[in-house]
Amino acid sequence: MSLKNINSNKSFEGWHKQYTHTSSVLNCEMRFAIYLPPQATIDTPVPVMYWLSGLTCSDENFMQKAGAQKLAAELGIAIVAPDTSPRGEEVADDENQAYDLGLGAGFYVNATQAPWKKHYQMYDYIVHELPALIEANFPVTKQRVISGHSMGGHGALTIGLRNPNLYQSISAFSPICNPTRCPWGEKAFSAYLGQNKEDWKAYDSYEILVQLSQHQPILIDQGSDDSFLKEQLKTESLLTLTSKNTAEITINIREGYDHSYYFISSFIESHLRFHAINLGLLEKH
Amino acid sequence: MSLKNINSNKSFEGWHKQYTHTSSVLNCEMRFAIYLPPQATIDTPVPVMYWLSGLTCSDENFMQKAGAQKLAAELGIAIVAPDTSPRGEEVADDENQAYDLGLGAGFYVNATQAPWKKHYQMYDYIVHELPALIEANFPVTKQRVISGHSMGGHGALTIGLRNPNLYQSISAFSPICNPTRCPWGEKAFSAYLGQNKEDWKAYDSYEILVQLSQHQPILIDQGSDDSFLKEQLKTESLLTLTSKNTAEITINIREGYDHSYYFISSFIESHLRFHAINLGLLEKH
Repeated sequence: MSLKNINSNKSFEGWHKQYTHTSSVLNCEMRFAIYLPPQATIDTPVPVMYWLSGLTCSDENFMQKAGAQKLAAELGIAIVAPDTSPRGEEVADDENQAYDLGLGAGFYVNATQAPWKKHYQMYDYIVHELPALIEANFPVTKQRVISGHSMGGHGALTIGLRNPNLYQSISAFSPICNPTRCPWGEKAFSAYLGQNKEDWKAYDSYEILVQLSQHQPILIDQGSDDSFLKEQLKTESLLTLTSKNTAEITINIREGYDHSYYFISSFIESHLRFHAINLGLLEKH
Repeated sequence: MSLKNINSNKSFEGWHKQYTHTSSVLNCEMRFAIYLPPQATIDTPVPVMYWLSGLTCSDENFMQKAGAQKLAAELGIAIVAPDTSPRGEEVADDENQAYDLGLGAGFYVNATQAPWKKHYQMYDYIVHELPALIEANFPVTKQRVISGHSMGGHGALTIGLRNPNLYQSISAFSPICNPTRCPWGEKAFSAYLGQNKEDWKAYDSYEILVQLSQHQPILIDQGSDDSFLKEQLKTESLLTLTSKNTAEITINIREGYDHSYYFISSFIESHLRFHAINLGLLEKH
């Protein structure tokens, strides 16, 4: 699994870098970005926040627009931003090139249905192949936290909750909270996972949380003026849960904010601080 | 001059908004973006930083990528980001659609040559029409500062220096410092201003500074690994000047940084603080 460096930009005394590599899990060439804070050296490896982006995005949206690198450089946290689906001419796409199925819309699941299953194994890529690659090639520890936006917020919640030993804390912006009961999720899961809705539940954070008596700390920020809130995101499903659940989950409804990166950038530093506390880099106060 | 609001995003408790309007100076419809910090109300108007972007950019690059809004919200500074040229199907463009002439490459001059002069009057648009529109429609004072990147750094320096009563301070990232002696400037000025190189000097910050005994405070940041530094930007021309000039000009060469927005975002807060000091919002220390 060799990496090819295709771009490097110094940023806040650290480095933003883009790489391509051949993914054996996804059966295609993939690109990812990493932000290495100035503290990251072989002698002083740093923990990693994995960031999962939303529909239509690549590794670039978060790195260019979120404004996360300043505080990541101060705290000493690396950030890894993978792509949102397998890519390439040989990879199946929606026949109408819809934005919410196929390329750019992997939904962080392992597809079981043709023609998707050959490449759309994003769950295994994020949980296993990519971290192994990162930990073998960069000055990072095995301490991981996970965050994401929209479809990537769904990915962060489901992947984090299903792997409590691998991710010390979970956060999300505007996550799709209950994909088995919203149009985006129903469309994608029907295609990738088939018609048996029982098979969908392993990728639905509401359904996972219902079954759990405890889990890692979770932080969610959601804009009140997000045009996708009621039909697609269903944050209210988690709000009903938290009233019954004693585990640590904080959901902030942010008045007047929308679904954009202007919203993410406004609150990303609070998410980095939340993860830094759970990584033992900052004290809680 | 009526404004049409086409986009609004809450950001750091203030608002990022995009507008279109018919420009009588440019003879076309134009788009700009404004960031209004939470302090900006009719009773408490705030000063404005005008940001001029570089080749190929629009109003969006700075607003999405620079990470300026957090500190602008803290300091109470509005930011206005105009487009980089006139736009529209009726507007002349380079016959090969080159990135460095025509659309996206207005160079902040008043063109005197056909076919450019009908629309390419960016100097007057930035200095006169746009601020009048901003000051008539938003809760801002007449206090202005100006900044920009690359071609926009050239614009900020030349416009600021030629209008000392209108701009209290000037800053630039990676500016084209001596456009009369670099390929980008020679190509654009030949087209827009004609072959008489004497006519070019009014749009060359080095040539303007040579003639001035005093000027507003200037702050420039330049990456040492900027691939355009030697051939296009010619920062060394200003460095020779400052050794002879007692006026206030600071040029920071930033080791390892390139020409990208990763560089701008790394140092934008120091530029906002510099302008805040010159606007009397912060004390110098």
